[in-house]
Amino acid sequence: MSSIQKAACIGGGVIGGAWAARFVLAGIDVDMYDPHPEAERIVGEVLGNAERAYAMLTMAPLPPRGKITFCKSIKEAVEGADWIQESVPERLELKRNVITQIDAATDPQALIGSSTSGLMPTDLQRDMKHPERFFVAHPYNPVYLLPLAELVGGQKTSPETLKAAQEKLAPIGMKGVILKKEIEAFVGDRLLEAVWREGLWLIHDDICDTETLDDVIRYSFGMRWAQMGLFETYRIAGGEAGMRHFLAQFGPCLSWPWTKLTDVVDLDDALIDKIAAQSDAQSGARGIRELERIRDENLVGIMQALKAGDGGQGWGAGKILAEFEKHLWVQGGGAKKEPDFSAPLRLLDTKVGAAWVDYNGHMTEYRYLQVFADTADMLLRLIGVDFAYVEAGHSYYTVETHIRHLGEAKLGQKLYSTLQVLSSDDKRLRFFTTIYNAETNEALATAEQLMLHVDSKAGKSVAAPFDVLAKLKPIAEAHAKLPIPEGVGRSVGQKR
Amino acid sequence: MSSIQKAACIGGGVIGGAWAARFVLAGIDVDMYDPHPEAERIVGEVLGNAERAYAMLTMAPLPPRGKITFCKSIKEAVEGADWIQESVPERLELKRNVITQIDAATDPQALIGSSTSGLMPTDLQRDMKHPERFFVAHPYNPVYLLPLAELVGGQKTSPETLKAAQEKLAPIGMKGVILKKEIEAFVGDRLLEAVWREGLWLIHDDICDTETLDDVIRYSFGMRWAQMGLFETYRIAGGEAGMRHFLAQFGPCLSWPWTKLTDVVDLDDALIDKIAAQSDAQSGARGIRELERIRDENLVGIMQALKAGDGGQGWGAGKILAEFEKHLWVQGGGAKKEPDFSAPLRLLDTKVGAAWVDYNGHMTEYRYLQVFADTADMLLRLIGVDFAYVEAGHSYYTVETHIRHLGEAKLGQKLYSTLQVLSSDDKRLRFFTTIYNAETNEALATAEQLMLHVDSKAGKSVAAPFDVLAKLKPIAEAHAKLPIPEGVGRSVGQKR
Repeated sequence: MSSIQKAACIGGGVIGGAWAARFVLAGIDVDMYDPHPEAERIVGEVLGNAERAYAMLTMAPLPPRGKITFCKSIKEAVEGADWIQESVPERLELKRNVITQIDAATDPQALIGSSTSGLMPTDLQRDMKHPERFFVAHPYNPVYLLPLAELVGGQKTSPETLKAAQEKLAPIGMKGVILKKEIEAFVGDRLLEAVWREGLWLIHDDICDTETLDDVIRYSFGMRWAQMGLFETYRIAGGEAGMRHFLAQFGPCLSWPWTKLTDVVDLDDALIDKIAAQSDAQSGARGIRELERIRDENLVGIMQALKAGDGGQGWGAGKILAEFEKHLWVQGGGAKKEPDFSAPLRLLDTKVGAAWVDYNGHMTEYRYLQVFADTADMLLRLIGVDFAYVEAGHSYYTVETHIRHLGEAKLGQKLYSTLQVLSSDDKRLRFFTTIYNAETNEALATAEQLMLHVDSKAGKSVAAPFDVLAKLKPIAEAHAKLPIPEGVGRSVGQKR
Repeated sequence: MSSIQKAACIGGGVIGGAWAARFVLAGIDVDMYDPHPEAERIVGEVLGNAERAYAMLTMAPLPPRGKITFCKSIKEAVEGADWIQESVPERLELKRNVITQIDAATDPQALIGSSTSGLMPTDLQRDMKHPERFFVAHPYNPVYLLPLAELVGGQKTSPETLKAAQEKLAPIGMKGVILKKEIEAFVGDRLLEAVWREGLWLIHDDICDTETLDDVIRYSFGMRWAQMGLFETYRIAGGEAGMRHFLAQFGPCLSWPWTKLTDVVDLDDALIDKIAAQSDAQSGARGIRELERIRDENLVGIMQALKAGDGGQGWGAGKILAEFEKHLWVQGGGAKKEPDFSAPLRLLDTKVGAAWVDYNGHMTEYRYLQVFADTADMLLRLIGVDFAYVEAGHSYYTVETHIRHLGEAKLGQKLYSTLQVLSSDDKRLRFFTTIYNAETNEALATAEQLMLHVDSKAGKSVAAPFDVLAKLKPIAEAHAKLPIPEGVGRSVGQKR
């Protein structure tokens, strides 16, 4: 995948900050310019949310974080950047002015994207010297989780620019969809505005309140649209007879006076008061930060669920996530400092997420094994058994596991795990893993596991290749000098 | 929760059949009337999809399935029913006629709901003798998974009827939302129609194709709406300043010519051809059955993800699922035949779902432990350690586990598990669980586990009460006569 080498963010509010988070978590350095006195604080908060979300989202090895530098001018920020993202307030004159300054200060090869949610790219690129590399890249909040960027070119944008932008978004986990023509508000905000206008009428006319309207959406078509959108959902509704049948069946409604959209509601003080009061009744018990946290956890859970879709291939945003993770695995987490083999290896830092706890808030039994398995995966990557190796047809499979539970972990608890190699030969690898409470260093659970190196197509164990054994050797030799941990060799219920 | 005792479904297409599936899977008998010659086949197919979905959706003990009886007349079908659901084709005269017949044939106390997606309840109840117990209960496809029913009363509907309907939907896992006033198409279809009209313009004007439009939805606000809907999402967008700020900021767009909804597109042959061709290009590689399967798996995954939301409390549809499951646990699966203790207990039948496999399609290591843990839960329920028992402050906790992997399971593989009690005293319970391939009876994995009875508040082991030990005793005594399974007492890597 063609990657961004260095990014610049002009405008560092919620949107610009979340772009910056996307970039730095994918290992890309960002130079940021925003004259707002609070910019550094806002970007820091957004980055904090993004890091928290990514820790729940993926076990793939994130590269070392890129660096954010706050610059004193647009010129300073864009220097050396090959992707510049403009996210200043939504006023045509302001945006056009900023984009023209960016254009003048950068290499003509650099891509320049605008986060505008509605302005036409032709209007924005009017005064540029190199307008062919300018486009709209309209993201959705929270930008660090939702993968969509609508890519829209203006009259002077080259088709190659849009293709290049699409390619460069993939390695940061985003899906650039290219629109055929520019219109104000593009596609997503057109659809949202239609629902918004109809929704305002429903509240205005007292058909329902805001909470009921939200319930209607989230208990029904919201969950259909999270995975399939409008047309594919209706294709299924049409049954075996297909889309034509659906259109024939539901077409007549178009001529019925079902929506009030032929008229536009007057958003006067009375309607604003009504909506604000209903919204307070619906959501006011929780602060915005809490709602953001819940939203992000839900989005993570939905994306992980979709990652398992279509027989494990991934579906919708889950497929984008799977591709992002594959990219991260292949990339292998980048250059990290050489681990120290003179003690059990600390391989994993994680946190008990919402999907890991039972109704009492305790970490569920099988999630411990998930952490043990993820820890073992980290060891395997360390000795060259990475994604490419497994895809080429060999791997290590677990054949036997012994687990002891020594303590409890609750929702939000930070954990880390260490691994000590106990014994190994050309086929066998036996090791001991411990999960710790990261605050107290108390051991919560231990596992002794035995793995065999296998030819996964033939389905039988075979000797590991020289390369892998060579990487394993210094670890095994160093760990052989360590004391054997208490608990090794136990059978279930054995007296101490 | 106030429960439906017996249901009648008048009309057995995709919607009526899915209502029937909701009822029978919640243990309610259904009498069905539909003169269509294919009705029995269609209902059977929908029920098959629903059973497949529920097997993935929940580990809670479903009650013994209700019975579906196909009747020869409306009169025969509605006899003795306390909930009658009408789902005949969407024509006012036909529906009114059917509803009037239902009314005449039933006890005046029975609730009568209509599945209409747009007709006004006042128009439908016009000729009824007991119109006060009639309402619209508008569900969304697939009815067996999506929890929403819009409850809408007509001029003659009593408020008590809507409350009673809401109460009776909860034990079948549905959320009835009550609208304040009737309008054609209610709330959900109003919003859908607004998006549909705007979407048709976007395709008509070649701004994008159907696939791009769907991608825009599913990679962005679709995932937001699956959990929160419109107003709560915008509340977050307003930030700490709240809903008023959001309204002030985005209100002006209402006066911009952003949507074309002031006009309605002509759905002529050219536009139908365009949409059908684009939809074929987008989704034609997969049949409708395959798309349905993928949709249901995704919905299951999304609901399970949302069940873990809000710190494990459940959020949105996940909270509805959690409440449904709690109801099932408390209900305890109803009367089942006495298990046979003279062999290891077959406690669980399941299937390898999409969320359980790695990218190779193999069941992931930690999901085996999930099946072992779920099997142990079934044993615990058998001896009275059920939801209420655990909530009251005592439980059995796993302290030690030994797992052997003997084979592999792939996506879709049917599995079952058996459990043999090895030893027990007043605090300790040691047992041996085996997971089998349900087609070949090959053992895929075994676990030996030790549990301790605990006071979960005090966090220490205590003797189990007499009741629990008394239920455990006959199982333990019968299993003591069985041979000790091969593998018991092993430590990791021990020679056979």
